[in-house]
Amino acid sequence: MHPDVAWAVWSGERARRVESVVDGFLPPATEPPQRLHEAMRYAVLGGGKRVRALLAYAAGELTSADPAVVDRAAAAVELIHAYSLIHDDLPCMDDDVLRRGKPTCHIAFGEATALLAGDALQSCAFEALAAAPLRDRGQAVLLLAQAVGSRGMAGGQEIDLAAAGQSLDLAELEHMHALKTSALIRAAVRLGADCGRPMSADENDALHRYASAIGLAFQVVDDVLDVEGTAQSLGKTAGKDAVQRKSTYVTLMGLAAARERIETLHVAARTTLTGFGTGARRLLELADWIVARTH
Amino acid sequence: MHPDVAWAVWSGERARRVESVVDGFLPPATEPPQRLHEAMRYAVLGGGKRVRALLAYAAGELTSADPAVVDRAAAAVELIHAYSLIHDDLPCMDDDVLRRGKPTCHIAFGEATALLAGDALQSCAFEALAAAPLRDRGQAVLLLAQAVGSRGMAGGQEIDLAAAGQSLDLAELEHMHALKTSALIRAAVRLGADCGRPMSADENDALHRYASAIGLAFQVVDDVLDVEGTAQSLGKTAGKDAVQRKSTYVTLMGLAAARERIETLHVAARTTLTGFGTGARRLLELADWIVARTH
Repeated sequence: MHPDVAWAVWSGERARRVESVVDGFLPPATEPPQRLHEAMRYAVLGGGKRVRALLAYAAGELTSADPAVVDRAAAAVELIHAYSLIHDDLPCMDDDVLRRGKPTCHIAFGEATALLAGDALQSCAFEALAAAPLRDRGQAVLLLAQAVGSRGMAGGQEIDLAAAGQSLDLAELEHMHALKTSALIRAAVRLGADCGRPMSADENDALHRYASAIGLAFQVVDDVLDVEGTAQSLGKTAGKDAVQRKSTYVTLMGLAAARERIETLHVAARTTLTGFGTGARRLLELADWIVARTH
Repeated sequence: MHPDVAWAVWSGERARRVESVVDGFLPPATEPPQRLHEAMRYAVLGGGKRVRALLAYAAGELTSADPAVVDRAAAAVELIHAYSLIHDDLPCMDDDVLRRGKPTCHIAFGEATALLAGDALQSCAFEALAAAPLRDRGQAVLLLAQAVGSRGMAGGQEIDLAAAGQSLDLAELEHMHALKTSALIRAAVRLGADCGRPMSADENDALHRYASAIGLAFQVVDDVLDVEGTAQSLGKTAGKDAVQRKSTYVTLMGLAAARERIETLHVAARTTLTGFGTGARRLLELADWIVARTH
């Protein structure tokens, strides 16, 4: 099989797999309170690139983890991601109406239900991990909680908010994204890897550097796509950064330098995995895919 | 020492204790992003009855738990409670401006930061439990996550929302409160008890019935106080239920029957603990205090 085809088959299978795990874990839409359960399912199922779940599964391959053990870790990071998108899209935050080509959760279900759906998806992520067949469930929960709290994702969102209307410098922008986007990506990689054989400190460190590079590359790609993409290809409002006068890699560095930065991060991510041998295959493919994606 | 004095001393000491645990666990207000950390601390420190923390410590006494082990469980339930109040008070929910005698979090810090502070406090609660010196941290996280998700607290809030402008019958009202208020109260009791010696199934069951009765009594008292109290004594807007035409125990049963219901639940809560001996002392005192409270 051509490598690109093999990757497409593997990633497609894993994306469907996490969809099915999340589907089975969430309460059915027929269970009261129905509207809340519908909103939760609407926000998390039937769309999205599943980058975070794929990172967990790919990192699991590195440590020979059973995908059935990785399932809950992959579901947990997707549940967290979905919760963060619901709250990000609320009128008091980014006030967005379109997400993954569909009306955002609060447009479809109203603000109050959307707020609660986000809250409940966060609880659900911790529930998924806490009931998982992991070596150390407490450690997994701790890792995820630290990645999404005020020293991680939520802190990054606050910095993003505070920066509205002001310009950040590159170091500030990078710090913001290290929390807002990369913290959860690093957690996804680590949670997935922790489902397999124990890693050495050096291996852990290399994986951390891989995840940090990929997390940042992912954000620079997002910034480039916001300039180049259309609402149709993105499934969300394009050109928002310019309208909101947000500092992005493109506004701070220009388009050409942002593209170079993506390639530098891409090479760094690949290089850090050289010691891992063939087990790193999916993580390498994922790095290629993240920097090549157009939507 | 007169029993009332002994209770006042014990509960005061424990309330200060959990305050100090939460204070030490939350990032300092000087740590960036400062505004988010200030909002989190504003919402959770320096006020509140600490009923849920007291329940955890009191249940810990039942199983001879070391209070130092209960600390994190007590902190976790208070962190969850604080997060739920922030989100409850938001304009898209109850739209309240006064809480514990102070401006609500979104009035003080803006809606976006308040939303994120609630989100981060939820993560923080799971972090507190996941890093606690408990026998089974995974089980503790699972218990808390189930209590606060869509089948617990968040589900109860959705039912409450859906009921706005409609009248509930008594069974529906009780179901709503069993989720919205009692689920976290039951979790507080169970988490505290689990910090000590293992309980038998019968003991577990008795404790569950105690917590359910107390959780419900707590809510009926709230409804009575909303009619009888003033904003000054409550520290929050009084008479809101009538203005919002909400179904309450008072609107459904009348004031006298609601008072009788409190006493029935009080007796039920006390009775269920008769097999526990002197270890149940603080839980009994807590039951007395909850039904006697005027603010």
